[in-house]
Amino acid sequence: MEKKITVLPGDGIGPEVVAAAIRVLKVVAKKYNHDFQLAYAAIGGAAIDQFQDPLPEETIETCKQSDAILLGAVGGPKWDNNPAELRPEKGLLRIRKVFDLYANLRPVKAFPSLLDASPLKREVAENVDLMIVRELTGGIYFGEKKRSETEASDLNIYNREEIERIVDNAFELARVRRGRLCSVDKANVLETSRLWRQIVEEKKEHYSDVTVEHNLVDSVAMKLITNPGHYDVVVTDNMFGDILSDEASVITGSLGVLPSASIRSDSFGLYEPVHGSAPEIAGQQIANPAATILSVAMMLHYSFGLQEEAAEIERAVNAVFEDGHYTADLVKDGGIALSTDEWTDKVIAEIDTNF
Amino acid sequence: MEKKITVLPGDGIGPEVVAAAIRVLKVVAKKYNHDFQLAYAAIGGAAIDQFQDPLPEETIETCKQSDAILLGAVGGPKWDNNPAELRPEKGLLRIRKVFDLYANLRPVKAFPSLLDASPLKREVAENVDLMIVRELTGGIYFGEKKRSETEASDLNIYNREEIERIVDNAFELARVRRGRLCSVDKANVLETSRLWRQIVEEKKEHYSDVTVEHNLVDSVAMKLITNPGHYDVVVTDNMFGDILSDEASVITGSLGVLPSASIRSDSFGLYEPVHGSAPEIAGQQIANPAATILSVAMMLHYSFGLQEEAAEIERAVNAVFEDGHYTADLVKDGGIALSTDEWTDKVIAEIDTNF
Ligand SMILES: CC(C)[C@H](C(=O)O)[C@@H](O)C(=O)O
Ligand SMILES: CC(C)[C@H](C(=O)O)[C@@H](O)C(=O)O
Repeated sequence: MEKKITVLPGDGIGPEVVAAAIRVLKVVAKKYNHDFQLAYAAIGGAAIDQFQDPLPEETIETCKQSDAILLGAVGGPKWDNNPAELRPEKGLLRIRKVFDLYANLRPVKAFPSLLDASPLKREVAENVDLMIVRELTGGIYFGEKKRSETEASDLNIYNREEIERIVDNAFELARVRRGRLCSVDKANVLETSRLWRQIVEEKKEHYSDVTVEHNLVDSVAMKLITNPGHYDVVVTDNMFGDILSDEASVITGSLGVLPSASIRSDSFGLYEPVHGSAPEIAGQQIANPAATILSVAMMLHYSFGLQEEAAEIERAVNAVFEDGHYTADLVKDGGIALSTDEWTDKVIAEIDTNF
Repeated sequence: MEKKITVLPGDGIGPEVVAAAIRVLKVVAKKYNHDFQLAYAAIGGAAIDQFQDPLPEETIETCKQSDAILLGAVGGPKWDNNPAELRPEKGLLRIRKVFDLYANLRPVKAFPSLLDASPLKREVAENVDLMIVRELTGGIYFGEKKRSETEASDLNIYNREEIERIVDNAFELARVRRGRLCSVDKANVLETSRLWRQIVEEKKEHYSDVTVEHNLVDSVAMKLITNPGHYDVVVTDNMFGDILSDEASVITGSLGVLPSASIRSDSFGLYEPVHGSAPEIAGQQIANPAATILSVAMMLHYSFGLQEEAAEIERAVNAVFEDGHYTADLVKDGGIALSTDEWTDKVIAEIDTNF
């Protein structure tokens, strides 16, 4: 298979973890005989420094000519006091909108060997295997904003099509997972939530193999902690998804290893680790590349339909953890922390062994 | 001291836990020589059944003639399919607005004897002692709502005065607590959040004894789980406050014992347990009255300025837990669950002993 991938290393530890993930990608390409062509471009703070724009036109053009995007991370103290339009995360918000990447998929799965790092009791966190599906290009993020000296407002707005397509994605995912969907809203207060709930009700007729529940966002915020094992697929709007997916990301102790996908209906997508740019440890070769490596696996799965290759990467990452190899963020008392590259070598060895 | 209190038992376990709390209130009144006059009125489902209105005019009148309100809980399956205006929680939303109860205070404190019930590891939850201050009468809850066949919207809107007064409340609370304030917003996306953040920055000049940090809502959703002990006072808007206060309520394992206050600038306030109406266990005398009893303590403290009396109730509740007495929701393996009234008797005995 031939595919073009745009690589956006970004800021902080972004370049290091992306470099590690690309090494893994190349090994997989060789093993399975694929031809992945890479084009590098700038985003975030790096793009502000070079082009005075967190998402330069050049970058958009490069992405347009590719089949998928791999992103490291954006942001850092250097740009924290910039005006809104020159903030690194503006690049992220714009790339989502420009490419209509409306479906944000964030799987959270407990790695048994990482549970010691979870703030939750082992028995609460151990069976977690959920997927948050967040609407990413609508709602209060992109509705009209107003500001005067004495008043400010943000419009939370959704139309039928925006909700229908994300709800369809969530049903399709539930169907190939454990067949359970939890739709999260605030229907006792918000009009957008009432439309959302109505559409989920309409859609469920077409997915009779999926069990659906509606739950209020405040109640889910509790249950994600008291009983996270309850959830399979969770679908929600942009703002609630932002909060709940971050909340969910810490329950298994594996924030540093969580990948994400932001996809469009034709399977074009952007893949990035859930963690941030961690400027305080950048350039030291101590960052954990697992989340970015697993983001590459999601790319192979969701954008290229290469299930076997994706599974191979996931298996390798899991095996390296099971063998007790960790980077500094996860190393246990008395253990030795591997560098970013050393840990990546272990993953590559796992894949190579199986040639 | 002479005070008038309106009592709104509400639905489900509301009447039982309110009855228990009133017994405690009467003992405190006797011990400290106060005269609390009680007037009962209807709210929620009970009011819908009797008056076809979740907040009848009679109830509003009764509340207007009192110095504080004690509420049990509202809601239940019986009214779940009612139209929006005839839903029990509409009574709650309206009473907040009618009486301008803009400051919702929700303390979360770890009771050492209850930590086994926490989903978090003991070392993560044990030092938690935080107070969420939620703006309760503005924002997306009360902004203009629109709905057509194909589109729905909710306006998130705040003006300067609404933000200033809640931020002042939070600073005042931080000052008499541990002197730390975390203001939560989504300033990288929302215009309302940018106004919010600006006002916190302006206000902090007047509270030089308080240390302030700004944090994004998604980041706080994580940190409330990974490091809840970090927080002292947390102030945020209505929607974020709804989610974060519920999230915070489960971290110590003591959801069933958490009180809340919703107050106005002149110290008039409504006090209620954080838990819901739990219709499935209503009428069985097994509900935990601790949250409502502690809500009475908050009433004494915040509406009547009776710090000593409030502290006496808190001390008594704590002592009963320390002595190993629990209702069914908290009882440990092999322990005996006390009924609602039996557990309340223990609290009263604690207070009586100290006459
Ligand atoms: C950086 C920020 C604008 C962004 C968001 O809120 O969507 C981030 O929190 C995320 O979840 O990807
Ligand atoms: C019942 C509901 C409208 C209410 C709210 O969202 O404010 C509740 O969740 C609360 O927090 O008191």
